[in-house]
Amino acid sequence: MVDDFERMWADLAPVGRSAASGGYFRQPFLSAERELSVWFAEQAAARGLTWETDPYGNQVAWWDPPAGWAGSAGSARSGTDDMAPGNASEGPPRRSGAGRSGAGRSGALLTGSHLDSVLDGGAYDGPLGVVSALAAIDLMRERGVVPTRPVGVSVFVEEEGSRFGLACLGSRLAAGTTTWASARELTDRDGVRLGDVVAGDAATAGGSRLLEGVETFVELHVEQGRDLVDRNAAVGVASEIWPHGRYRFDFTGLANHAGTTAMQDRRDPMLTYAMTALAANKQARGASGGGPDQHRATFGRVDVAPNGTNAVPSRVTGWLDARCATDASLAELVAAIERQAQQRAERDGTALTVTAESVSASVGFDADLARAIAGDHAGGDWPIIATQAGHDAGILSALGVPTAMLFVRNPTGVSHSPDEHASLPDCLVGVAALADTLTRLAG
Amino acid sequence: MVDDFERMWADLAPVGRSAASGGYFRQPFLSAERELSVWFAEQAAARGLTWETDPYGNQVAWWDPPAGWAGSAGSARSGTDDMAPGNASEGPPRRSGAGRSGAGRSGALLTGSHLDSVLDGGAYDGPLGVVSALAAIDLMRERGVVPTRPVGVSVFVEEEGSRFGLACLGSRLAAGTTTWASARELTDRDGVRLGDVVAGDAATAGGSRLLEGVETFVELHVEQGRDLVDRNAAVGVASEIWPHGRYRFDFTGLANHAGTTAMQDRRDPMLTYAMTALAANKQARGASGGGPDQHRATFGRVDVAPNGTNAVPSRVTGWLDARCATDASLAELVAAIERQAQQRAERDGTALTVTAESVSASVGFDADLARAIAGDHAGGDWPIIATQAGHDAGILSALGVPTAMLFVRNPTGVSHSPDEHASLPDCLVGVAALADTLTRLAG
Repeated sequence: MVDDFERMWADLAPVGRSAASGGYFRQPFLSAERELSVWFAEQAAARGLTWETDPYGNQVAWWDPPAGWAGSAGSARSGTDDMAPGNASEGPPRRSGAGRSGAGRSGALLTGSHLDSVLDGGAYDGPLGVVSALAAIDLMRERGVVPTRPVGVSVFVEEEGSRFGLACLGSRLAAGTTTWASARELTDRDGVRLGDVVAGDAATAGGSRLLEGVETFVELHVEQGRDLVDRNAAVGVASEIWPHGRYRFDFTGLANHAGTTAMQDRRDPMLTYAMTALAANKQARGASGGGPDQHRATFGRVDVAPNGTNAVPSRVTGWLDARCATDASLAELVAAIERQAQQRAERDGTALTVTAESVSASVGFDADLARAIAGDHAGGDWPIIATQAGHDAGILSALGVPTAMLFVRNPTGVSHSPDEHASLPDCLVGVAALADTLTRLAG
Repeated sequence: MVDDFERMWADLAPVGRSAASGGYFRQPFLSAERELSVWFAEQAAARGLTWETDPYGNQVAWWDPPAGWAGSAGSARSGTDDMAPGNASEGPPRRSGAGRSGAGRSGALLTGSHLDSVLDGGAYDGPLGVVSALAAIDLMRERGVVPTRPVGVSVFVEEEGSRFGLACLGSRLAAGTTTWASARELTDRDGVRLGDVVAGDAATAGGSRLLEGVETFVELHVEQGRDLVDRNAAVGVASEIWPHGRYRFDFTGLANHAGTTAMQDRRDPMLTYAMTALAANKQARGASGGGPDQHRATFGRVDVAPNGTNAVPSRVTGWLDARCATDASLAELVAAIERQAQQRAERDGTALTVTAESVSASVGFDADLARAIAGDHAGGDWPIIATQAGHDAGILSALGVPTAMLFVRNPTGVSHSPDEHASLPDCLVGVAALADTLTRLAG
């Protein structure tokens, strides 16, 4: 298994890597990400897994129980009692199609992550979960495990939202929580419509059936903070995802000559933007008072028109990424930032519109499942920690699928950056932890 | 002449115009600007003017005196006495080649401007000077004027610096004040080298000879402020160009996840940039105290890496455009902004480097020439006013060529914007003023 892991990791290392920064550019439906997509299908084939895709580009590679096994006939409950998800019988409509020919695997256990990256991202965010899932199956087979229910390795597209702006786009479409009618109108920075880069409307009319019959989801992911470093643990289990959202702030003013326009005659939206970026930071810091840091506010993306050195801009657009420990405090934080921005816009003679591009409510993962996964290991329980990052696991959990996440320690806590890292020993502990979890759920 | 002017203006109106904003995108060596370049050569041919170009893409269309005329044999002094430039005998080395076969026109009078635009610019900045120059020749011919010295209409490339970042690039290269060895390494936003888009090094080795023998330059330009509106005058004459410069501020921090990175653990260069943009504005406003506005500071262009919504940036680059009434106050203004930026960088844990991409000292135009052009008109003298905008005229003046500028009133004072405007009657007054000036200098 160690060899498998290292070989797969070596396969991925050069794909979409910037020689200048060492970071990755794996935006969906562009060459690097498509190469990874093909690589995944090849990995599935090499393992004799059944590969499926949907019209949006999401993929699952299935490891099915032997024919005639009870688990393949429809019962989802083949795990130990203490692992039985508490709400598996309250499935949403998506499962109504289970059993239809050619799609859906009743009682399925899904694990996986994504292969796309943020712009100039790290190697681990996404791929570690996919590679670990494949390696976990290899390890389970080495150990002679025979699955009692279908085990699928999933790859969801555009998890980062780096191209079309909506994070977890693939899992939202597969889950049906975002409709194709709205998603196809999303455009990338060059104005290219999503509807023009994935299969035509005819092909997508039927939607995705990949999640039909899925009754449990487990995602392994590199940790994106330093919680596990502080707790001196190689792996941990997620308790919840903070509520978070992306808000587009469009500041408009009046383009003018940067030399000849007197300072007092300007309506410069760059000033309103700059003050808003500072206010967001100050607001998030201040909101937590002296206590633990329960707020995040970031302006990491800006678009300026016309963006010329010698012109006062006509428009500055900034995207606010905001996250808080509770839904109420998130709404308060964003409102406070918007209020300060509007006040400054009045002073600058500019105008502001704020558009919530995506807002995800807080997600609490299945607590019984988390406790069961975390407990009873040699060396003690794995810590159960919250995360401030959105994940496909949050989409599935919100849909009612009992869901768990495993985190692998990140020595620096740095993520969405070329500096993102996890040590090989920790990665291998992660693979073993995932294999143990899958075995308990489907072994 | 009115018909000529209107026809030429109609020719130019659709070229490079954005349907969305109504503004112009005429970046050098791209399709719209190349179309204008060909249009200019056609206009020259239609008028029987002798068209010349240099390896950089600068152009001149010559209206030569009749063969055997004294003015064509080498004397520059064919104007009236009061128009004789004060320092014409102190020519720089560039004129040493005058008289060489195939280049250089001894005693030449040049007029013209540029056809490129800023990103999303107005229709008048540049083209008005070129169209007015051609229309002025038409008008002089209608009036039966015979030139006593060569009169050339010039079009300099990349005056705005919108693509390769160095304003007045064409006139700097033609004047020899910027060398091809340095200019060819300039890159545009896509990393394309100037040396790869204009004729190869072999062709440019000889440099430009277009300015050889030029002894006077007159540029007509739309006004970019509201001075002429306040003075209730359709045209004015330039006294000087403020010193001005472009400074690249590179702020570097540490890319990280916008959700999982605690606020206090960040090294976010967006914050340092934002505070610097606000400080620049405040500094420029404050420096003039309660008196007339003698300072300009603008951050109109920003580039962010990786520019992702959910990532703390690794780098933010902002370009400062700064201009002041004196060289000393410009240096003071930029130093004060940089000082504040460095202090904030220390606080944010980011790093800052500042690069002066171009700094132009103050240019005083030939005072005798300005007075002679401005005085003695029906309806009184034309006002003599300063400008805060750089122009090719500033490059030629700094080279020692007696130079003058005519401005045409801009009702709103807005420039570098789709809203830039000049009324047709004012434009025609401008053409007549230019024709009168050229006639006095070469009639």
